[in-house]
Amino acid sequence: MAGKDGKDAKSSSSNKGNKKEVKKETGLGLSYKKDDNFGEWYSEVVVNGEMIEYYDISGCYILRPWAMSIWEVMQVFFDAEIKKMKIKNSYFPLFVSPTVLQKEKDHIEGFAPEVAWVTKSGESDLEVPIAIRPTSETVMYPYFSKWIRGHRDLPLKLNQWCNVVRWEFSNPTPFIRSREFLWQEGHTAFATKPEADAEVLDILELYRRIYEEFLAVPVIKGKKSEHEKFAGGLYTTTVEAFIPNTGRGIQGATSHCLGQNFAKMFEINFENEKGEKAMVWQNSWAYTTRTIGVMIMVHGDDRGLVLPPKVASVQVIVVPVPYKTVAMEKLFAACAAAVESLNEAGIRAESDLRDNYSPGWKYSQWEMKGVPLRLEIGPKDLEKEQVRAVRRDNSEKVDIKMDKLVTEVKEMLDNIQQNLFDTAKTKRDACIQVVKTWDQFIEALNQKKMILAPWCDEKEVEKDVKARTKGEMGAAKTLCSPFEQPDMPEGTICFASGKPATKWTYWGRSY
Amino acid sequence: MAGKDGKDAKSSSSNKGNKKEVKKETGLGLSYKKDDNFGEWYSEVVVNGEMIEYYDISGCYILRPWAMSIWEVMQVFFDAEIKKMKIKNSYFPLFVSPTVLQKEKDHIEGFAPEVAWVTKSGESDLEVPIAIRPTSETVMYPYFSKWIRGHRDLPLKLNQWCNVVRWEFSNPTPFIRSREFLWQEGHTAFATKPEADAEVLDILELYRRIYEEFLAVPVIKGKKSEHEKFAGGLYTTTVEAFIPNTGRGIQGATSHCLGQNFAKMFEINFENEKGEKAMVWQNSWAYTTRTIGVMIMVHGDDRGLVLPPKVASVQVIVVPVPYKTVAMEKLFAACAAAVESLNEAGIRAESDLRDNYSPGWKYSQWEMKGVPLRLEIGPKDLEKEQVRAVRRDNSEKVDIKMDKLVTEVKEMLDNIQQNLFDTAKTKRDACIQVVKTWDQFIEALNQKKMILAPWCDEKEVEKDVKARTKGEMGAAKTLCSPFEQPDMPEGTICFASGKPATKWTYWGRSY
Repeated sequence: MAGKDGKDAKSSSSNKGNKKEVKKETGLGLSYKKDDNFGEWYSEVVVNGEMIEYYDISGCYILRPWAMSIWEVMQVFFDAEIKKMKIKNSYFPLFVSPTVLQKEKDHIEGFAPEVAWVTKSGESDLEVPIAIRPTSETVMYPYFSKWIRGHRDLPLKLNQWCNVVRWEFSNPTPFIRSREFLWQEGHTAFATKPEADAEVLDILELYRRIYEEFLAVPVIKGKKSEHEKFAGGLYTTTVEAFIPNTGRGIQGATSHCLGQNFAKMFEINFENEKGEKAMVWQNSWAYTTRTIGVMIMVHGDDRGLVLPPKVASVQVIVVPVPYKTVAMEKLFAACAAAVESLNEAGIRAESDLRDNYSPGWKYSQWEMKGVPLRLEIGPKDLEKEQVRAVRRDNSEKVDIKMDKLVTEVKEMLDNIQQNLFDTAKTKRDACIQVVKTWDQFIEALNQKKMILAPWCDEKEVEKDVKARTKGEMGAAKTLCSPFEQPDMPEGTICFASGKPATKWTYWGRSY
Repeated sequence: MAGKDGKDAKSSSSNKGNKKEVKKETGLGLSYKKDDNFGEWYSEVVVNGEMIEYYDISGCYILRPWAMSIWEVMQVFFDAEIKKMKIKNSYFPLFVSPTVLQKEKDHIEGFAPEVAWVTKSGESDLEVPIAIRPTSETVMYPYFSKWIRGHRDLPLKLNQWCNVVRWEFSNPTPFIRSREFLWQEGHTAFATKPEADAEVLDILELYRRIYEEFLAVPVIKGKKSEHEKFAGGLYTTTVEAFIPNTGRGIQGATSHCLGQNFAKMFEINFENEKGEKAMVWQNSWAYTTRTIGVMIMVHGDDRGLVLPPKVASVQVIVVPVPYKTVAMEKLFAACAAAVESLNEAGIRAESDLRDNYSPGWKYSQWEMKGVPLRLEIGPKDLEKEQVRAVRRDNSEKVDIKMDKLVTEVKEMLDNIQQNLFDTAKTKRDACIQVVKTWDQFIEALNQKKMILAPWCDEKEVEKDVKARTKGEMGAAKTLCSPFEQPDMPEGTICFASGKPATKWTYWGRSY
């Protein structure tokens, strides 16, 4: 098991011989193109862009600072937002005892095959094996039961930032599917269902903002089918992203209403205002480091990562372009001055003054790392009191007057952020295909579309579609029923069963 | 194993019968006194103060929001400081493969007995058992070896905020000794020893500031003995705290210079400026949630927690004191206005407007939770345009004019912070005993002192002292050799061996 990924990564990157070795060594260039070989391109870009290092245990990855800084930007946003909602951070243990883990049957059925078990400490066997949390419902809810007595103890709203472990065996992929990942998990309990329902959507809106406003990735808000909902929950809402290159939907983040199912199992009762015993309504919700993988897949190109300015830890890289007509000190001073004025304006700018690399090499490296904007300063720029600005997203070049540096850079960063989102949305929208019949469905599936179809919303029909589309590429399943439902004229029938359709639902292959 | 702590906690809190049950229910009062039964007092105050909930796996604890908010305040401070030092956050996996874990022999000898092993996933046995990190030297350094090639790759300075697991069997204690805990671990590599040495002390100074400026706990900076240093490292520096009630020293946080030992084992080499192959110099350093436990032990009293204002998530609690002569709305409005003006000034204030508890009950509850300052507002206060302020640390009561609220409260919070530190330092200093002979040493040890003694600095002598003081209370060991060394007149001899002394060293029992 150990070394598996490491080996894969190595073999896939060494099959072009020495030339590739040198490239890797210098960190320049990708050997795969995004449109030609998406899987290999992704494996390479996460490494060459210094987001990930492959680790010697399969399915585990090292998140390098370039990735962690993105995680931290999202964390600062989300943490402040949930604190405004009076949700409080806590930390529950990594370990779960088997009796508690197995208390909710549907829930554990969903997770059991992926649970990692600790059975030894040092040389000794533990009396009872102990599970590592795949998620913390069963870790937390016995204590919800203890802490909640009366209606005044409600709502109880907790969150934690932590790692979880799901020992999956299929296709580990950095960020997207890993055996350990980082996330936040919120767990809340309310006196009434309307309160729980409202929070589910408030949180989902924060997830939408993370994707659309920070990562510049368009998502569709909707509800999961009964078949795809969270194990043990009442209903699951989701923000669904789509990867045009693979034609696969990807669950971006989910906000679940658990109903009273866990409350029943864990006896989370309270005395309501009338003095009667009642059961709480619960939610749980999470987003993970998967967000970063989705961003890379959507925006990256053949030159490397493309980072949206809002999450980039370096938004602007300033590169001096030396030429014999000007003293290095003068150039360096100009770069430093540019960085300083940008920093003062709250823009994350750095200069690259290394003397052992050419400007061209530096351009390539920062393009690989996806820095949104590059400023070049050469002798002519000094003369004209300007800098040359180059956008990462569309390679546009503009000369900016030094005295307008801050305002113009700010505007360009805003434009880049917006352009990334717009471009991604145009591409995603072009992949959406409305179908009404089975034949249209199969055709759209073969074209790697995100398919919007009228559906009868029956579990058996979804299972049947899965069975009928099983193949090399993976079966089709429901992604979500969007909250924004197109009109459905009377008499519309389900594309798969021919029964009366009840809702429009997105279907497709998925991660 | 499961349920052990839970049971302990229950039996210890139910042995006073029904009266105690009611107390617990209402969250008021402690059944143990700090000076009479410190251990039970501590177990009770962490629960009643809502810092901790006991968990059904022994040695694991739930960190409730009241504790997590303190952790977060320290984290915001420390994270910003290390970022100024150009240390970057990353995240390495929770799991370590056995071959890597065992690479550094001294290191693994120190940790092996406490390592938790995952051997199963779902129903299947893993091919090779996988360890859970007790610390991440062996997780990270194979990749340091990969990333560091030339002198320009140095220094490499990484940090991570994460959980670690040490499956200890002796005396689990909330915050102080738990099987899983939260920490930051910094791992850095330098081209030269002087750079590494300097960083060790820079970090140690941050740890001192966390204890002294945030937690108001006095610490002594010093160096650990060879016997007590980090397994596999070159030398260990520490900030040592002291708990007067138990007469035990406690390692507050440690900053290690690892020398080149790990560099040798993990082949972390680089080409230096002369083009020669050289080995890096490494440091690692960490502080943990133990900090919170030390703070509780030092400041807490028979009425509950006492939180230093700088780390308290609620610095000021405002309580209305209703009386028939005045309308509730008027009182509530005055409370809300006070909170608003304090919040606007950056003071963390809240009001407690619950209508089902008496003011007295509220006073007790917020005292139990350790809120630094209470403001009471009653009809007479309204009349006189004042509030009554009550300090948690010394119970002092002062009337504050409404129009001076913000400035006076700010000043009081500063005073409380300073007073907590001064009081703790006076108590700690009173426990320090200078000894020169073995008899004085034993006498001081019996008096639960923190003993400063001239020592020959020989490992065998430390082992011998340990052996000779072994007993019910635990053996004495070195705590640290303080950086601030008192004069040592020529001819001073070691208190234990009679050989020439080389340094003053603190000794005592410890956690």
